[in-house]
Amino acid sequence: MKAVVFDGQPEGRGQLHLAMDYADPHLTPGEVRVRTTLAGICNTDLEIVQGYAGFRGVLGHEFVGVVDQAEDPALVGRRVVGEINVSCGICETCRAGRPTHCPNRTALGIRGRDGTLAEFFCLPAGNLHRVPEGMPDNVAVFTEPLAAACQVLRQVHVRPTDRVIVLGDGKLGLLVAQVLALTGCDLTAVGRHEEKLAILAARGIPTRLGDEGLSNNADLVVECTGSAEGFQVARRLVRPQGTLVLKSTYHGLVQTDLPSLVVDEVRVIGSRCGPFPAALRLLGRGMVDVTSLVEAEYPLDEALSAFAHAARRGALKVLVRP
Amino acid sequence: MKAVVFDGQPEGRGQLHLAMDYADPHLTPGEVRVRTTLAGICNTDLEIVQGYAGFRGVLGHEFVGVVDQAEDPALVGRRVVGEINVSCGICETCRAGRPTHCPNRTALGIRGRDGTLAEFFCLPAGNLHRVPEGMPDNVAVFTEPLAAACQVLRQVHVRPTDRVIVLGDGKLGLLVAQVLALTGCDLTAVGRHEEKLAILAARGIPTRLGDEGLSNNADLVVECTGSAEGFQVARRLVRPQGTLVLKSTYHGLVQTDLPSLVVDEVRVIGSRCGPFPAALRLLGRGMVDVTSLVEAEYPLDEALSAFAHAARRGALKVLVRP
Repeated sequence: MKAVVFDGQPEGRGQLHLAMDYADPHLTPGEVRVRTTLAGICNTDLEIVQGYAGFRGVLGHEFVGVVDQAEDPALVGRRVVGEINVSCGICETCRAGRPTHCPNRTALGIRGRDGTLAEFFCLPAGNLHRVPEGMPDNVAVFTEPLAAACQVLRQVHVRPTDRVIVLGDGKLGLLVAQVLALTGCDLTAVGRHEEKLAILAARGIPTRLGDEGLSNNADLVVECTGSAEGFQVARRLVRPQGTLVLKSTYHGLVQTDLPSLVVDEVRVIGSRCGPFPAALRLLGRGMVDVTSLVEAEYPLDEALSAFAHAARRGALKVLVRP
Repeated sequence: MKAVVFDGQPEGRGQLHLAMDYADPHLTPGEVRVRTTLAGICNTDLEIVQGYAGFRGVLGHEFVGVVDQAEDPALVGRRVVGEINVSCGICETCRAGRPTHCPNRTALGIRGRDGTLAEFFCLPAGNLHRVPEGMPDNVAVFTEPLAAACQVLRQVHVRPTDRVIVLGDGKLGLLVAQVLALTGCDLTAVGRHEEKLAILAARGIPTRLGDEGLSNNADLVVECTGSAEGFQVARRLVRPQGTLVLKSTYHGLVQTDLPSLVVDEVRVIGSRCGPFPAALRLLGRGMVDVTSLVEAEYPLDEALSAFAHAARRGALKVLVRP
């Protein structure tokens, strides 16, 4: 089959390539084979190509697909999205209800498991969620990143009276801002790209180009810039006893003034994968605009161009259709 | 009056000295004058002498005293402890119920206000708490640091089923460990001094010399080491989606792997001053052993010796009696 493969050669050609004869995935017990109908390129994919997470194999974890092979014949032909973490189910972490943190987990296209930027891939049946009828593929493909945005609300009680800042107007920032706006909170989305902030402004969300002049009085700041510099800005904007949610993954360490967190009693909370059912409900009710986030769609044959496009500074969502 | 004064000269003599003729504090409206009967030396005092917080004036914020002058004659003669933060009461932060974070605040012996290591000092009447009859001075003097220990339970819901590690066997660590042990949680106190851990072991609290061999499965780690190195150890011990409370204030920045906090969805919470009434209740019921933490008591005339003693590596509480 055709697949977008990262082989991790440190330099030069062949680091990221489109394989034309990658071995078809073999069905293992408990898993189904999915035929990808649409896949998204995420910043994490771009980071992996830079060496993040040390992954080797087929990239991609955002997808809509159709079940192609399954032990349960009722599943075959079902249109699905799916959770990306595959947990062991038996360790202490899984039994404690934290399967996305299973130390034995694999993750689609990120850790020990081939991903979705291919004609086919495998996933446990238990990871799948049925896509509601009538929901277009280019909406459903946002389920995974929208779930990650919903995770903020799962971790933090955002009150309708809270002053909230979402920092960063990339793909995740635009989703997080839309999800937080649903709470009725006093939200400002802060970014660097007028045209991207306009997507939020069109939905009535106050936006701001750059953080200059903003006070340090936010109850909650969600850092979605994707860069190490975002932390210092977010730290400056949060009030004493306020909450700073970190969504950015990148390379490298950050010089951090930890004693100032003590003096100001700030809460810093890391936030990663989130609840698919909630994301599907929001998409199904049209409560989040995702189609405005689609910047381009490429056929799988042109996946390398799709990656080059996604890597452009300020690019929004680039989709790949096998 | 006699007072322990830090004048902030960068080098040499006179940096910390015992003034014999420091001006008596002058009563301002709303405030009372307190005659110090017993004061404690805290690590923060030692940090201030190293330049932390840029404070100049009379040191000290831990005290028991007797009201000496007051607008309300009923207060005169009352034995009291007192909250150290003096807030404006009218700013947004105060009105939001966060007076200890008032941006206009002063703090006894730490920020813009002379402290308790003197014969007399002033404090608003509203900051005072009456010391229960029968509670010895050398118990009541622990109200302030014990309140800081209680603050952890105010910020974090510690469940009786939680695996908890208190890191650091200094004065604050020993108080935090005793307070957390009251929840019935599965607590281990990790330190570097056998004789200090023995204070906890005598109360049935499991202790451990050094963190080697401990797994990364703590639901909660409270970092009380007082040093920058403590963070990395605490970070290693906390489980995914676990909580890391920071109590240490010190100089300097720490290289921090923020993306790993995202991947593991760790919560980091800074923690400072706490509730006096709760601390007084625990002391009044004898639920925390503080007298074992007293290492020495000096008269005010020998306050410089008291400071030298408190600065010894591993020293516990040194008290000063005017």
